[in-house]
This record gives sequence, structure tokens and C-alpha cells, in this order.
Amino acid sequence: MEPDKFEKSSINEVKRYRNRGKYGYDDVYPIIDSAPVLHISFHALASDATESYPVILPMFGCTGSYGEKAGTERSIYLHGYVSSRFFKKSSNSLDDSDGLKICVAATLMDGLVLALTPNHHSCNYRSAIAFGDAHLVTDEGERFYAMELITNNILPERWENTRIPPTRAELTATGIIRVDIKSASAKVRAGTTGEDRNDLKDEEMRRRVWAGVIPSWTQWGSPIPAPTNMVENVPDYIRTWVKDANASAEKFAYDVAK
Amino acid sequence: MEPDKFEKSSINEVKRYRNRGKYGYDDVYPIIDSAPVLHISFHALASDATESYPVILPMFGCTGSYGEKAGTERSIYLHGYVSSRFFKKSSNSLDDSDGLKICVAATLMDGLVLALTPNHHSCNYRSAIAFGDAHLVTDEGERFYAMELITNNILPERWENTRIPPTRAELTATGIIRVDIKSASAKVRAGTTGEDRNDLKDEEMRRRVWAGVIPSWTQWGSPIPAPTNMVENVPDYIRTWVKDANASAEKFAYDVAK
Repeated sequence: MEPDKFEKSSINEVKRYRNRGKYGYDDVYPIIDSAPVLHISFHALASDATESYPVILPMFGCTGSYGEKAGTERSIYLHGYVSSRFFKKSSNSLDDSDGLKICVAATLMDGLVLALTPNHHSCNYRSAIAFGDAHLVTDEGERFYAMELITNNILPERWENTRIPPTRAELTATGIIRVDIKSASAKVRAGTTGEDRNDLKDEEMRRRVWAGVIPSWTQWGSPIPAPTNMVENVPDYIRTWVKDANASAEKFAYDVAK
Repeated sequence: MEPDKFEKSSINEVKRYRNRGKYGYDDVYPIIDSAPVLHISFHALASDATESYPVILPMFGCTGSYGEKAGTERSIYLHGYVSSRFFKKSSNSLDDSDGLKICVAATLMDGLVLALTPNHHSCNYRSAIAFGDAHLVTDEGERFYAMELITNNILPERWENTRIPPTRAELTATGIIRVDIKSASAKVRAGTTGEDRNDLKDEEMRRRVWAGVIPSWTQWGSPIPAPTNMVENVPDYIRTWVKDANASAEKFAYDVAK
């Protein structure tokens, strides 16, 4: 049987609020695929600095599996301009055969949790981090697979409803990075406030301080046509997606607020 | 005169789409303060691994200046449980006098930019990254300053409308980290689609492919009282904030979509 979860180890184990930690592929992948933006981090050495800091870049991406790798286990595909920063490493870089050691974070905020005391304030969230080795994808088939995957992960059916295929110049300018996941975990908080026992005994204070959850989600507005747009009405696949994405995100945030 | 911007250097210079790069304190600080969640990254060595990966954690935080440092220049204060991961570094850590080298990222997504071809797809966003040295704050005055600052940065007037001050046990459990910013920059994209010249000449295709922007923002729902809540109505400072935050976020996303 194929494995269906990440092994716990020192790198991915959730130690604070252990019960919020989740390790199944089905816990981790959907969070990465639902986040509108991913944050990736790697260690970079600035060319004119003696000090080195990690770098975080926001990027588009999602999970996928291509060719022989297709199956339960998925990689993370990242899309966009491949910054020269990726190559300025002293010890490892994207063009190494071992790849570049990278961390990918996906965070969805589902609400603000307002307890009676600020130190018990929290938020409802779904968070995933993955550690892996990043490689620049050069195989043309895999590059096309990833471009379509990432485009349609953001907005379903968008790829086939655009001008495709990309031109030679566009292909050259677009970098596709594949992160082979070595370890990952998810952390999820859902529910209403958690209170200090003593605070619950203090009715005078409780009559003064409001406690509860303010749900939150990413809201999509009405599509605004570009000045150059020549299509009269917003196509169904966009209109329907905006409506459905908003409705399900709102419902989710309210459901976990209770 | 006090400096009011970050000096450009190899670490913070925006090289891709240079015109989107901004370096003023007034460009960087408001993005950090507006993001509901910050992502921070540092280099960690897993205790039982020979390979080391950077780690990303989502945290609450905002900019501030305390005591002698008060003025134009601000630090970033982060709030929450101080993970043991912060201390597992081989070369530098939070308890070093030099601090822990850290990157802080704030990303606000303002819309999905749908060009005629997927390779010109983009998004409207405000993004800031800051590089700095992180220190655990031990001074009690500064710790209280930061707790109030971060609480009210998320929801104005919340601190004074809760049970304060925190108990001794709560104080012990709450870590405050101050990041002294060494370098930072912002990157902002606003506006409608950018198209390939040749695509604009292809009217047959343009009558088929919708192009434009789908605005997006963080939407706050109706506050849901906790089962233990004893305050009958949602207080004005919360109700007004939810209404105003939604209205201004929505307006902003529509304004930059044009």
C-alpha cells in the first residue's frame, strides 16, 4: 500500500497544541491548494553582504504529480519568474542535482478568536508547511502540465478559455519549480474561544467583555473587465466560480466559529 | 533629519519589475501593519537531521517603537508562543546578543489579474519583506507595550475592553519578539491586465477570451458570540470596525482593479 501520510520527525512535528497537528496527505495537500498565495523560504547569501538572512517570497503554486510520479504522493509546483536570488547560494542552489532546500507555507485565516483576556486571543486557521528540495523543471511536458495545473487551481477552467499555447518567448520567461516534499505537516484551529477557568467565574467582568469569534475569509468581488476586453458578459465559468468560492468560504468560516 | 527610507542593497532591491519596488518607511510599515498574519522565516537545524531547511511560521505582529527607540524608525513586534525551534540553531539564536537572523513577510492580495494568455496572468498585491535581528523582549514595560500594540493593531480598542492586566502565568506563557529591521522593501502591483501586443491585434481571440480583474480582500463576517459570552449586543467598537474594515478593503480592491 502507498503511504498516505508524512512520518513525524523533529522537523515537522507540531509540538505546541499537539492536538492541532495533522500529518495525512489529505490534511496537508488541500491547504496548499486552497491558499491563494504560498510563501516560500530559502537561505540566500547576499552578494555584497557578509551576513546571510533567509528570504521569503510570495508565489503561486499548488500540489501535483506528473508522469511516473503520478499517484498518492504529490510534489508542489511553483510558477513565476525564477528570481536570480535562487541561484546566489553558497552551498546549494536550484541548479544543483540535490536541489535547493526550501520551505513552503500555506496559511488560511478563518477567523479572529476573541477570548475574555488578550493572552487567550487566537485565530481559527488552516496552516501547512512543507520542507523539500526544489528543482527547476526543464522537461517541456512537465512544464505544460504544471502551467495548466496552477492556472486552473486558482480559477477552474481558465487555462482552456485563454489564448494557448504560450509563445516561445513566454515559455522562456516562465519558470516552473518542482518541490519534492521531504516532510510536511498541517496545523488547524477551529472552534470558539478557550477561556481561563478563573475568568469564567468572574461574572462582573464577563458582563463587560464580549467574547466570541469574528469569521473571516477571502472574498472575491465582481469581475472588472479590462479596458481592452471584448467579451460582452462575464463568462459562466468565472461568474459561477466567484459565487461558489465566496459561498463555501463564508460557510466554512461560520461553521468553524461555533 | 531622520532617515525615512531603507537604503537599497543587494538584499532588499526589487529587481523584477523594478517600478513595483518601494523603499520608504511609509511604503513598508503600513503593509506589515495591515496583513492579518505575518510569515517569518529563519534557518533551523533539526535536532536529528543532518540536512537543514529554513522554517516558516505564521505569527501575529506589527511595527512599533518603544522608549528611546521611539521616532520615525520602527521595529517589528511578534506575539505568541516562542517555539523551541527558535533556539535549536547551530550558529545563531534568539538568546544570542546579536539576535536571530530572520525574514518577515507581509502579503496582501488585492485581486486576480486575468490577461488574455495565462503567462501574463498576475495578481494585484501589496507585499513587504523585512530582514532583521530578532530578540526576545525581557523588559516588562516593553512587553506590555507590545502586547497592547499587537492586540489593538488587529482590532482597535480591544485591549482596553478585555480583562487586563494578564496574570503572571499568562505573562510567562507569552513570548514577545522584537525584530530590529536591517533592511526591507515593498513591492506593489495595481491596475488592470498587461497584455502582449500581438494578442491585442487578434480580435477573433479577444472576442473569445475574457480579460480583466477579480478584486479580492479579507472579509470579516458577523461576530459570533461564544457560548460563554454574557454581553448581550456586539459592542460598538467591534461592530463599527467590522463594517469599516470590510468597506475600505472592498473599496481598495475595486480601486486598484481599474
